[in-house]
Parts: sequence; structure tokens; C-alpha cells
Amino acid sequence: MANQRATATAHANIAVVKYWGVADSALTLPYNESVSMNLDHCTTTTTVAFDGSLPADEVGIAWFGREMEEVTGQAYERVVAQLDRVRMRAGIEEWARVESANTFPADAGIASSASAFAALTTAAAGAAGLQLGEHELSILTRRSGSGSACRSIPPGFVHWRNDGTDAGSYAVSVAMPNDWALADVVAIVDTGPKSVGSAENHRLAVTSPYFKVRLQEVPARVNGCLRAIREHELATLGLIAEADAVSLHVVAMTAQPPTFYWRPGTLRVMQAVHDWRKEGFLSYWTMDAGANVHVLCAMSDAPAVAQRLEALPEVQFTITNGPGPGAYLHAE
Amino acid sequence: MANQRATATAHANIAVVKYWGVADSALTLPYNESVSMNLDHCTTTTTVAFDGSLPADEVGIAWFGREMEEVTGQAYERVVAQLDRVRMRAGIEEWARVESANTFPADAGIASSASAFAALTTAAAGAAGLQLGEHELSILTRRSGSGSACRSIPPGFVHWRNDGTDAGSYAVSVAMPNDWALADVVAIVDTGPKSVGSAENHRLAVTSPYFKVRLQEVPARVNGCLRAIREHELATLGLIAEADAVSLHVVAMTAQPPTFYWRPGTLRVMQAVHDWRKEGFLSYWTMDAGANVHVLCAMSDAPAVAQRLEALPEVQFTITNGPGPGAYLHAE
Repeated sequence: MANQRATATAHANIAVVKYWGVADSALTLPYNESVSMNLDHCTTTTTVAFDGSLPADEVGIAWFGREMEEVTGQAYERVVAQLDRVRMRAGIEEWARVESANTFPADAGIASSASAFAALTTAAAGAAGLQLGEHELSILTRRSGSGSACRSIPPGFVHWRNDGTDAGSYAVSVAMPNDWALADVVAIVDTGPKSVGSAENHRLAVTSPYFKVRLQEVPARVNGCLRAIREHELATLGLIAEADAVSLHVVAMTAQPPTFYWRPGTLRVMQAVHDWRKEGFLSYWTMDAGANVHVLCAMSDAPAVAQRLEALPEVQFTITNGPGPGAYLHAE
Repeated sequence: MANQRATATAHANIAVVKYWGVADSALTLPYNESVSMNLDHCTTTTTVAFDGSLPADEVGIAWFGREMEEVTGQAYERVVAQLDRVRMRAGIEEWARVESANTFPADAGIASSASAFAALTTAAAGAAGLQLGEHELSILTRRSGSGSACRSIPPGFVHWRNDGTDAGSYAVSVAMPNDWALADVVAIVDTGPKSVGSAENHRLAVTSPYFKVRLQEVPARVNGCLRAIREHELATLGLIAEADAVSLHVVAMTAQPPTFYWRPGTLRVMQAVHDWRKEGFLSYWTMDAGANVHVLCAMSDAPAVAQRLEALPEVQFTITNGPGPGAYLHAE
């Protein structure tokens, strides 16, 4: 092995056109392409150390403000499965010690699996001595089961392309972080755990009679967002993001069984943002498979948006993000 | 004229399969059939007096706890248009004084147009000396533009049949009020006016890409509800009512432009009812084109449901209804 230990950092991302519905669970191939922005203030930093003396893989995670805790159960198994993919690719057999730390609170409800599996895959590949380019790394990350994690590999604004094949389902940058000063102000309205994991709901998506309609809508949204990112058109991007978020939640609410991710505070923020727009204050919302609301606006408006959001009764706190970099290995 | 003055009472109704989308605005023909229950504690009582000495129609309305107010503008024009339909049918020309009183508060957000136009049409037809059976009266009421009002003409549980023709789009009872002790506990969570009138949204429904899917789902829901009403199967009726309410709101949220009727309290009640069901406490929700939630349960459970609902932070008050009678003329 070229290297037995490596540390990597990756950023969470927010999709303006969502990944929703898995066409191939074994390879984590989506039904549709998606578009996202990395979040510069929401990161996971992970160290992977392969060690021939370990009797099994070990995984510790430290959330912001908390002690390191050993990971067990299903979360542990998912990490081991991804380490196995890296070991198989590298032709090694050693178990690994994995230690991971997040810069955002566990109860922020910000999807941590994207930054977690992007950092894990980048660090594990580095520690195993694999020399993978961005294309290969995003494919390997995608296979982790956390498909959205592949979008955290390239920097800035990212397009997850998909032709339905393993080699043709990968993420690429469409604009660098400093190309456009877009902000995502995350409004935390709910700290409870989700009742249904999104992995399960990716499988349930096809049971919604509205899923096929969603798939017909998505290509135009992807093209619209790519153009809006190139031309820095917040209003275009924002309206597409709102429509696509609604369509994801529509599919979840009409699946068998239905899932309702929205909470009272979700509706409060959605309504407030629409009211602000009527005043000419340009901001737009999107929600992942959860209750918290991501409010998109110009970075110059982000402090005012954060202040307005925090004045709403159900909003506990906010996290302001600009476009973040891609996943990277730390210097030795 | 056989009679120049008549008073009628009609009840609001709650649909378990909704009317959403108008196929013919002139005749108020719906795209789909619907199923509802009259609400015994939400009534409108209206007196119509044709009077040759009046220079124009006059319309006064008194909400529960309020003084009579003269109605003007668009609401007035809709009443006049319906009086015109009755005058044309009866071959009379006199203007009328209309006085209407509701037993439920104006700010309850319970659709008042159904009971209002059912009572108006019944009273106006009576005052004009028309001898109309339930079938003709429901058709004449439907043409008012408040299509759901036709369901307030027959008693109890009602099926609005529709074959796309004027004569074939009418309401009939499928069970009498005393056939099934079902309760509708209305949770009032929002007192603000709706941002978009439902008449406008009935026209917008076709702009949603999900509307066609909804129309494919409705016939099975109608049949399922009719069977559930016959067999007193609360769980069947309730699950269909929830799915159909979601589908109405899905169409509204995905129309061009989208409308979001839900408010924080709406989500609070939806979530609470689902939590109660997990405890084995059978209750189900539905929402019209508004924020308030109608909770369906056995009448024997209604006091407990009302108490639980009123303990939720956003719920201002509740109104408990059993199945109500049809529209009727008062004795002279």
C-alpha cells in the first residue's frame, strides 16, 4: 500500500433539482439527473487508517459540540460496505479505523450522509493508495448507497449526470464556488429524527402515481437550473427549486405508504418567503426529505434573510452557507 | 306567484372525495364525481322575499355572533345571478330581499358557500312558487357556481354524480343521517382569508401536470367511499379521505401559479392524527381548499378528539358535527 492513513474533507450539498427514487439499489443509480450546490459551512472531515492489527473495522463519529461516539448497527454496516468497495478496488484486506467529525450539529437535520460518504470514500481511497480522478471518485462515492454523496465530490455547483449505467452516472462541476455568490440559509425548524429513512423512501418513490409525472418534469428543470447557474439568474433557479421540492414532497405524500416530512415550521417558512417575495425581497425555498427549509438568496441578502428567519416562532437557528469546494485530501 | 316569501335551511358539507376542477364554468360541471357528508352544526338559514316595490335585489348576511351586514361586490353579484336563474325558471321579474344567517363563525374557515347557495336556491325556488324535486333542486343549486352546494341539497351522506351533462350532474343521498354515527370535528387553525378564491383555483386545476393523474384515481375512491359508507367502515373511508385531500392539495401546489393552503397548524393536526392512529385511536383528516382540518372519527370518540385537538398549540377552537339533514323549506 502506498499509504495507510489519509484524511479528507467533504461538504454537504443542497439540490435545486432533487435525486428522488432509486432505479438500481445495488449500484445506487437514480431515475433522474439532479443539480446541487455544495455548502461551505457544513463539512465532514474523516480519517481512515488501514491497520493490519485490527480485528474488525471501527467507526467513530463526532458531531459539532459532542464527544466522539462509536458507530454501530446499520450505520456501521454501511461504512463497512463502502470500505469493502475501496478494499476490493485496491486489493487490500486490512480493517480500518475511521474517525469522522462534522462542523454542523447532528440535530440540524442537514443531510449528513452526502458529506459523510464523500469524505469517507475520498479518505479511504487515499489511504488505500488509489489514484482516482474526480469522475471515478464520484462513481465510487455514489455506490455507497448515499447517491447524493457523489455530488459532494466536485466543487461548487454540480450536475449529477446519469445515463442509467454505472460509468455514466457521475457528478461534474458546472460552476466554481467563486463564480456566483449564492447563499443557502438553512432554517432549522425540527430537531426530531425522521420517521422514515430516505433510503427507504427512495425505494417507495415508484409506488406514487405521481412519480412518472415528476420524471417527465425533471429534464426541463435540470436544463433550466444549469442555464440559471451559468447566467446567475436567482429568480429562475429559485422558482425551479421550489417546484422541484414540491414535486419531491408530492411523491412522498402520495407514495404507499405516504410520508409527510413537513412540520408546522416548514409551512411557516414557506409562507414567509412567499410574503417576502411580494415585498420584492428575492428569496426562494427548497426542502430535502425533511422538515428544515433551505432559503436561497443572494449572499448580500443572507444576513437579512437569516435575521428574518430567526424571528419566526418555529425557527430554532439558521446556518448560512455559500458555495463550497469539492472533497479534498488533507496534506500528510 | 304561489308564494312570495320563503325561508330555507341548508347545511355545510365535508367531502371525503373532493370536487376540484371545473370542466364547464357556465354550468358548473365538475371533472369528477365526489362524495360528502352534511354537517349538522354548520347551517345557513336564508329568507327570500320577492317584492315588486324593490328597485334592485338586496342581500344581508349575519354570521354567528355578528350583526346583519349588507353584501356588495362579487358576493352580491353571485347571489343576484342565482336569483336570476330562479326568476327565469319561474317566469317572474320581481327583485328580492335576501337575508341569511349562519350558525358558524365567519372566521371558522368552513366553506360557507355550499350551505349558503343551497339555502338560497331552496328558499328562492320556494318563494317563486317553483315545485322542484331534490334532483332538479340540486341541479339548479349546482349552477350557482358553488358546485359543492348541490351536495347540501340531499340529506346525510351524498354522492354528486356526474356524466358531464347538465341533467346528469346532480347529488343523491347514499345514506341517511341516522344510518351512521360518523363525526367531523373541525379544527380551526387559521382565521385569515384565503389568498386565492377556490372558484379561481377550480379553473387553475387543469394547469397542474398532476391533475390528470388525480382524475384517474378518483373513480376508485368514489366507489370505495360509497362502499365504506354502506358498511360503516371508518378506516376505509378515512384512508381514502386522506389520500384524496392530499391529491387536491397536490394539484393546487403544482398548478400554475401554485397555491399553498396549508398553514403551520394544518401540519400540526395532520401529524397528531397520525400519531393518535399509531396508538390505536382511529381518526382521519381531510382539508378543503383551506388551512383548517376536518377530523373524521366515530361520534363516540368525538369528545376525546375535540379535547386532544384543542390541546394543540395552533388550534383555536373546534366544532363537532354529525351527519346533517338535507336542505329544507320552513313551514309558513
